[in-house]
Amino acid sequence: MSEPLILQARSLTAEAFAAFGDVVEMAGHAAVPMNQGGAERFHDLAQVDVRDQAGEVGISLARAQPENAPVTLRLVERHPLGSQIFMPLGTHPFLVVVAPAGDVPGRDALRAFVSNGRQGVNYHKGVWHHPMIALGAESDFLIVDRRGPGNNCDEAEIAGGDVVVQL
Amino acid sequence: MSEPLILQARSLTAEAFAAFGDVVEMAGHAAVPMNQGGAERFHDLAQVDVRDQAGEVGISLARAQPENAPVTLRLVERHPLGSQIFMPLGTHPFLVVVAPAGDVPGRDALRAFVSNGRQGVNYHKGVWHHPMIALGAESDFLIVDRRGPGNNCDEAEIAGGDVVVQL
Repeated sequence: MSEPLILQARSLTAEAFAAFGDVVEMAGHAAVPMNQGGAERFHDLAQVDVRDQAGEVGISLARAQPENAPVTLRLVERHPLGSQIFMPLGTHPFLVVVAPAGDVPGRDALRAFVSNGRQGVNYHKGVWHHPMIALGAESDFLIVDRRGPGNNCDEAEIAGGDVVVQL
Repeated sequence: MSEPLILQARSLTAEAFAAFGDVVEMAGHAAVPMNQGGAERFHDLAQVDVRDQAGEVGISLARAQPENAPVTLRLVERHPLGSQIFMPLGTHPFLVVVAPAGDVPGRDALRAFVSNGRQGVNYHKGVWHHPMIALGAESDFLIVDRRGPGNNCDEAEIAGGDVVVQL
């Protein structure tokens, strides 16, 4: 049995996350005025990709119980037919653990990011990810993903031994 | 010039709002477990309808400056090609003013609702609505609506005289 791998979480940035999906945030995007100047809008922050096999967009809410770092990872999953947005509805940081689309990842392929609590994520289609990990407090999210026919969730064990994410 | 019409805002409920769109909230919906029991998910809370004329789903953020009640309404708008979700990212109440899809509404057709700050709304395609009215504090929203070719915004004056919304 190998030693646990210690995976250091990094701050979530659009650049660092680009290989896995989109960061849904205002920072780094130009605003356009709306509502006669009473508001500003930041356009097109995520690529929703759900139409494979007659998929439609689904809108859901989720309430997650918090975990305490360091977190021992349990498994990874992917949605082979669609992208998936998790947008926080509060201000609590949360952990995002991903690996590239493709074969089941070994533990060395995992990357961990911490959302500042205002940043949402959009996993691109097929990107492996750990189930979301709320930190600090019960946390609510809006989910924008795919609904429709077909199998859209694969789960896999993380190969190579335990992985512990630290902040 | 007629007297201003006083429009009393009501609490936002799925039932009262059903003629205009969906209320995106956990209340009244059954949860299913997710993430090995560490979270619960409330499925399919809004009908996203954006495909007319080759439309796609767009994901945006908006930051709105607050207004003070009573609010004198300015205009109404509708999106003839798609639905539009406003999901609050904080806890501040906001005002939702709507009128049925169809001809430009007279002021008697308007209805006003107050979100409790956790409830989002999804305007169904073509439903007339006032630009969103944040209350109390600068407020951020996630918007899920349509992007694509064609004219997807009609604006109209409110016929019949001034309308003042009170809480």
